[in-house]
Amino acid sequence: MFDSLPLCRLLGIKYPLILGGMAWVGKAALAAAVSNAGGLGTIGSGSMTIEVLRSEIDRCRALTAKPFAVNLLMLDPDAEAKAALLLELRVPVVVFGAGNPGVFVEAFRRREIVTMGVVSSENLALLLERAGVDVIIGEGCESGGHIGSVTTMVLIPALADLVRTPIVAAGGIADGRGIAAAFMLGAQGVQIGTRFIASVESDANDTYKQLILKAGVRDTIVTGEDLGHPVRVLKTPFSRKIKKMERQSADEVESLLLGSFRKAYQNGNLNEGSFLAGQSAGLVHDISTCQEIIEKMFAQAATLLEYTIPHINERRKHEQNGSI
Amino acid sequence: MFDSLPLCRLLGIKYPLILGGMAWVGKAALAAAVSNAGGLGTIGSGSMTIEVLRSEIDRCRALTAKPFAVNLLMLDPDAEAKAALLLELRVPVVVFGAGNPGVFVEAFRRREIVTMGVVSSENLALLLERAGVDVIIGEGCESGGHIGSVTTMVLIPALADLVRTPIVAAGGIADGRGIAAAFMLGAQGVQIGTRFIASVESDANDTYKQLILKAGVRDTIVTGEDLGHPVRVLKTPFSRKIKKMERQSADEVESLLLGSFRKAYQNGNLNEGSFLAGQSAGLVHDISTCQEIIEKMFAQAATLLEYTIPHINERRKHEQNGSI
Repeated sequence: MFDSLPLCRLLGIKYPLILGGMAWVGKAALAAAVSNAGGLGTIGSGSMTIEVLRSEIDRCRALTAKPFAVNLLMLDPDAEAKAALLLELRVPVVVFGAGNPGVFVEAFRRREIVTMGVVSSENLALLLERAGVDVIIGEGCESGGHIGSVTTMVLIPALADLVRTPIVAAGGIADGRGIAAAFMLGAQGVQIGTRFIASVESDANDTYKQLILKAGVRDTIVTGEDLGHPVRVLKTPFSRKIKKMERQSADEVESLLLGSFRKAYQNGNLNEGSFLAGQSAGLVHDISTCQEIIEKMFAQAATLLEYTIPHINERRKHEQNGSI
Repeated sequence: MFDSLPLCRLLGIKYPLILGGMAWVGKAALAAAVSNAGGLGTIGSGSMTIEVLRSEIDRCRALTAKPFAVNLLMLDPDAEAKAALLLELRVPVVVFGAGNPGVFVEAFRRREIVTMGVVSSENLALLLERAGVDVIIGEGCESGGHIGSVTTMVLIPALADLVRTPIVAAGGIADGRGIAAAFMLGAQGVQIGTRFIASVESDANDTYKQLILKAGVRDTIVTGEDLGHPVRVLKTPFSRKIKKMERQSADEVESLLLGSFRKAYQNGNLNEGSFLAGQSAGLVHDISTCQEIIEKMFAQAATLLEYTIPHINERRKHEQNGSI
């Protein structure tokens, strides 16, 4: 039912699902597991050196014959070198994050690499469309990690009215209800991160996974707003402390945050770790394999959309034929 | 198509739409216009004295024969007297806001007045279910006015998993896409406020309406977070000033905010007014009559849900018969 959607045909995937590009968590094993289960796995390059990124891409290719993506953060000091590597290795899909990819897009396009860009605002969406990306991922502020200010419910329809580029919805989605809602809002697919931190194939520390299972929908907090780069993390004594401190002593907070993503992911360090997660952590209640997670969420979405998707496709066909 | 939904049958309305209870904006004329158009209009009692509330209810009854609601804020110093008035006048529906209505619920139930409660958290939803309200309105933080911290996309599925009481989704909804998405998330209807500020029948100052038309999705700001009562308003020089000041001089800010809702609504006062609005202001582009607004949004929702709603009803029937 879903594989006939344009996004699935563009990417060569079974389900219109992209794994959110996650620092530390987004390693080859998780990306390959999502791709093998019919979605598009994403290697999160933000936490990797060039050498590590190269070996993770190799490893991903060893683990899956399916397409996968690598995210590329425009703020990354190594962005150019990483872009060169992705071109050299001809990864199937590149997802631009944290800024305007500008001229990079054309270079990837020439190598027939699919390009996608993550946006949290209308302005960046327009820039990305002009730059020629194939897909725009609209990320609501309920997402984990670095966020904007607009919720998924509002951002997606606004983007759908603004651009002609296909839109993928991200933020707050952890099950088939969110997927079905994303379609109604005007998206052609979803990007999901938090749900997959609590998967068998994620090698996040078990403390991290348990925190996500225990979290309710109000158990995240946004730190860094006063420093100009808001980041959504799970509520812990450390994140509450950061939140209180950041107004008084920005420098001290910056030094406390250094390495805090790794400390959460690798060591489950509650006293010094930032456990990135979206509000949808409140909707995650079990650790399953990526395949179980994906099949369950799309079975639920299919039930909700059963008569709707064929109808949408039918309408699109009519529109293309000029009959509507 | 929508009038067969349980929520519509419970309330005696054509479309599963409740007008958000808005201070100042929610007067009899607007409430009656929404009810006459097939939704459930709501008189916002928060800004009214007992005498004004009585005359607004009388006026609403003069303007419509259809059911309507009055909201009752638990924080209102006149809450008890207003509850007594609503009982005396036997308004069709009462919507509890800003807290736990507790024993009030039973008094209304005995008079066969339908009760609904607005929540932004799981905890309050459980309390309201135990108190016996007929409908729970889950309000995401993209809403205008007083807000919680969880977005609609996450709050609604979480509530749907938690309570058996029918759920209405509020926050970020301004058109048929939002309505259709709300159904997918597990709601049986929607509550919409901001869209109706920019209606012909709203007597908000024209400056207020124009600000909503001009707003993009990022043009709201949350003030009062540091004072413990976050309120979403349109970005203006005044609201930006308040946001900056509230950390330093809480008392001064409180005195600046006094009367600021009225100044926005009545005078369109950009220098001293708080223009309450949700992020969905970015999705509002015209001033229309309530009837035009409602018919257009439900026509759009119907197209999106065409084959889904009968299917949902069918499934519900099977569930009730125990066949699933």
